[in-house]
Amino acid sequence: MSLKTFLIGRPIETVKEKHERLNKLMGLAVFSSDALSSVAYGPEEILLALIVGGTALIHLSVPIAVAIVVLIAIVATSYFQTIHAYPSGGGAYIVAKENLGTYSGLVAGAALLIDYVLTVTVSVSAGIAAITSAFPHLRHYTIALCIFAIVFIMLINLRGVRESGTAFSIPVYLFVGGLVFLIAAGLTHIGVVPGSHLVQQVEPTAHMLPLFIILRAFASGCATLTGIEAVSNGVKAFREPEARNAGITLTWMAVILGVLTIGIAYLADHFRILPNADETVLSQLAVAIFSKGVIYYAIQISTMLILILAANTSFADFPRLSSIMAADRYLPRQLSNRGDKLVFSNGILILGLLSAMLIVIFRGDTHALIPLYAVGVFTAFTLSQAGMVRHWLKGRDKGRIKGMLINGIGTITTAVVLVIIAAEKFTHGAWVVLIAIPALVFLTQRIHQHYLSVADQLSLCLADTKEFKRHTVIIPVSGVQQAVINAIRYAKALSDDAVAVYVCIDPVETAKIQAKWDQHCMGVRLQVLESPYRSIIEPVIDYIEEIRGLYPDGVITVILPEFVPSKWWHHLLHNQTALLIKGVLLFKRGVVSTSVPLHLR
Amino acid sequence: MSLKTFLIGRPIETVKEKHERLNKLMGLAVFSSDALSSVAYGPEEILLALIVGGTALIHLSVPIAVAIVVLIAIVATSYFQTIHAYPSGGGAYIVAKENLGTYSGLVAGAALLIDYVLTVTVSVSAGIAAITSAFPHLRHYTIALCIFAIVFIMLINLRGVRESGTAFSIPVYLFVGGLVFLIAAGLTHIGVVPGSHLVQQVEPTAHMLPLFIILRAFASGCATLTGIEAVSNGVKAFREPEARNAGITLTWMAVILGVLTIGIAYLADHFRILPNADETVLSQLAVAIFSKGVIYYAIQISTMLILILAANTSFADFPRLSSIMAADRYLPRQLSNRGDKLVFSNGILILGLLSAMLIVIFRGDTHALIPLYAVGVFTAFTLSQAGMVRHWLKGRDKGRIKGMLINGIGTITTAVVLVIIAAEKFTHGAWVVLIAIPALVFLTQRIHQHYLSVADQLSLCLADTKEFKRHTVIIPVSGVQQAVINAIRYAKALSDDAVAVYVCIDPVETAKIQAKWDQHCMGVRLQVLESPYRSIIEPVIDYIEEIRGLYPDGVITVILPEFVPSKWWHHLLHNQTALLIKGVLLFKRGVVSTSVPLHLR
Repeated sequence: MSLKTFLIGRPIETVKEKHERLNKLMGLAVFSSDALSSVAYGPEEILLALIVGGTALIHLSVPIAVAIVVLIAIVATSYFQTIHAYPSGGGAYIVAKENLGTYSGLVAGAALLIDYVLTVTVSVSAGIAAITSAFPHLRHYTIALCIFAIVFIMLINLRGVRESGTAFSIPVYLFVGGLVFLIAAGLTHIGVVPGSHLVQQVEPTAHMLPLFIILRAFASGCATLTGIEAVSNGVKAFREPEARNAGITLTWMAVILGVLTIGIAYLADHFRILPNADETVLSQLAVAIFSKGVIYYAIQISTMLILILAANTSFADFPRLSSIMAADRYLPRQLSNRGDKLVFSNGILILGLLSAMLIVIFRGDTHALIPLYAVGVFTAFTLSQAGMVRHWLKGRDKGRIKGMLINGIGTITTAVVLVIIAAEKFTHGAWVVLIAIPALVFLTQRIHQHYLSVADQLSLCLADTKEFKRHTVIIPVSGVQQAVINAIRYAKALSDDAVAVYVCIDPVETAKIQAKWDQHCMGVRLQVLESPYRSIIEPVIDYIEEIRGLYPDGVITVILPEFVPSKWWHHLLHNQTALLIKGVLLFKRGVVSTSVPLHLR
Repeated sequence: MSLKTFLIGRPIETVKEKHERLNKLMGLAVFSSDALSSVAYGPEEILLALIVGGTALIHLSVPIAVAIVVLIAIVATSYFQTIHAYPSGGGAYIVAKENLGTYSGLVAGAALLIDYVLTVTVSVSAGIAAITSAFPHLRHYTIALCIFAIVFIMLINLRGVRESGTAFSIPVYLFVGGLVFLIAAGLTHIGVVPGSHLVQQVEPTAHMLPLFIILRAFASGCATLTGIEAVSNGVKAFREPEARNAGITLTWMAVILGVLTIGIAYLADHFRILPNADETVLSQLAVAIFSKGVIYYAIQISTMLILILAANTSFADFPRLSSIMAADRYLPRQLSNRGDKLVFSNGILILGLLSAMLIVIFRGDTHALIPLYAVGVFTAFTLSQAGMVRHWLKGRDKGRIKGMLINGIGTITTAVVLVIIAAEKFTHGAWVVLIAIPALVFLTQRIHQHYLSVADQLSLCLADTKEFKRHTVIIPVSGVQQAVINAIRYAKALSDDAVAVYVCIDPVETAKIQAKWDQHCMGVRLQVLESPYRSIIEPVIDYIEEIRGLYPDGVITVILPEFVPSKWWHHLLHNQTALLIKGVLLFKRGVVSTSVPLHLR
């Protein structure tokens, strides 16, 4: 208990829930680290896709970045509407389920859950990879470091919502501040330091239509949008008025994301920076503007930190989404319980476990997983916005035409992008997600069926409250000793119809016990059962069955003396016959088994 | 059940026990394969030890073999007396314990138990090594083949005493017949084929006193005696008159062992055979006499078989010895139960498991274990015979002087041999056994203490049979549904003093349940417990504690509804709160917890 308190702090009372909510500044840090961290690789992905087309195409990076910022604006505007339409938290799951039906909701939910796991895995290993490239002798410990990072983020999240907001604010704002400063400094240098790098002539290396190259670059750049939906899932984590605060936070996030994306793409083009296996575009840009000084290293370190922290967004969202799905009985109900610290602890633990498993399976090299997650994100975007279109169609609100228009454009745009990404990345691994999503949907439906069936069975014969006609107590005994006396004392408290049974293996021993019985056993009869094959359990079960047949209106209690040893290894020294009898009786109707514990010193 | 029947056959009734006993021919096969198999390597060990002394010493192999045969005669005569003095089975453990005290008995028992495990490990891997040298492409599967052999011998033994006698008779008699024929043929060739091999001149390679070389050769040759005690442990497995049949079997075994040892040593010397890493002495001898024909291969194959079967002696003895020690409460009592087939199944399974573990740990290469087991055997010999000397001293029998003389010579001889072996082999691994024996003795004493303490606690307050003054039934509920109704029906069968408790997490939900309660709940009161930290278990436990404090003379039954799902994975979909409550209640005196199962479809 004290270790738990040390790691995650003291429990928080339910009534304190509102005090634990996030203000806008903290909310931005908690929910945007995933989206903002993608600035670290989004522009680079565009350049990497374009470079195969040679110098002629490389200048298109700025228009493509503009297109992505437009996409960000569309998606953010759509989600802004969602937040206000669903102030109690409107993730893609809820919006799609309410408006498009259960199946669409489950597809969106499954896509997001898988995505969150992938996000944790990929961002943690990317962040650790950044650290191990700076300190190569740490490379042997990659997996251990990744697991350590996951456990660390998990513990911070288990401590509660507000505490994780505080812990993560600093690196997020350091990163944002650093990049804004970088862009500002870069822009003031323009004209002063014109194109400090040589103009390199790059030959095309792929024989593809330029249109396809451009589409691929756009699809790759769409990775920038991952995480943008986070705020809409977490509206309830904000202080009141929740929807307003969440909406403002989303707007801030979209603006920052847009400015950083265009700024970096523009400066990279201006300074003629080309992607390069040894150094990131961001690093080259920082060197070009600041040279290798304190500011450069500060930007590099905050980039590492935000990559690891991107995982934190998933830790805020996965438990929330899974608790909503669990409350709807599509996931195990334990996921809907809040823990000591008012967070959904089980969801946090499961996310940590699944992502740690992926880290171990892929041995910390999760580059192959990167193409996977844009597919899930855009599936959720499309379903969520199609759901919003349906929402406006059904409603009678004032602004429904405007809303329908915004979300309609959002739906079409993200659907097109989804098709582009799925097609472009299919052979790069997107097919895995296209199998995993239906599999998870199938599982959630099976879980739901089970809960429905249980609920049905629990309510079935609510009228069947008739009392039992007879209560027989049976006590299997192995001798005359204190544990048996305790069991008989308890049996006499339960019913006047009690009988002890003894299985005869050795007639001599049986005679001894029979003789000893009457002295101590308070008038309870001893029934001796024959066992030609030396089995203890079968004769007892047969006897219970016989009594059950005699009194079908009654109930039988089987009392088993149980030793509770003081040391675990003492269990090995005692027959587990009582346990086996209980296991068999579990499946017999009208029979209840009880252990009367005898505590050994 | 049907798989079990297929593997080990139908159960055998207790009254059929005498029909399952062994006649002398089968007894010889079951109990002597360990001892007889040592002929395959005993003479070779002597030659290997002598060869470092050069040609001058190599001829001493025949006198040393004679010394070992004398030792066999002494030990066998001693054990012959033991069998008649202890007709109910007199292993070293019983003889030493009864005459020299518990501690000596435990040392002898521990030495033998360790030895049996080593015997199985070493003989199985030696037998499999013989097979893999004949078929080298099987070498990759050494461990799997060893495990397979162990499982096979285990299953044969689990089938019952007489069936294992039948299965093992054939290879044992094939081996004995083959070697007798080899010796007879070899002797008739003498004079006809004088020293067919060249006389090789071997230079001494070690600078040791000849006395030490001779002692080491003698110590190595003593491996021939391992297994000679087997018959005396298993007297009860023979048909009546048990002692007479066992004594005759022991005599046969000693005679066969002596004849084979001297015969092989004499012929090896006559044919000037020297040990050689590529071919065993026995194989060289067979080639010299028969050339490589059908008889040669028959002898080789039966040698392999008897090496594997040597393990079978341990499977006959380990379960018997451990059941005797378990009946004395020095080992877990489960070892003293006879299974379906009248054998001590648990002992057979544990021996199989331990030896398989050693095989895996040593990756099937158990050569290093060979020097270990002579130490254990001679420890047991010495203690057993010292015990017999004491036995005669205490008694008033007619033949006590003769008996004392025989056993006295036995004690002194084996004690001297034990010292020689322990000293010679100490650095070769004998120290491991000298640590393992005391460790096992310590463990048996701890087990004994535990059983004594339990027995003491069980008999302590046998007079405390006063009835409970009050019986309160508490039913923790999570709602109003069929499982709760079942629990309440059962509670009403137990006591009139029943109360249901509900932990309030959400006041709205609580109000709903309170409203629904009175309709269905048969007059049982619902107590609502507050839980500011959302814990379910703590408020329930606190309430139980409170009631326990109110009625110290009473007993409390806690009834927990339990779901029994139809599929195992359904367990994951239900809270395990009931299990946790039961776990906590297990350690509270005066509280009994009961699960009322609800069977889900």
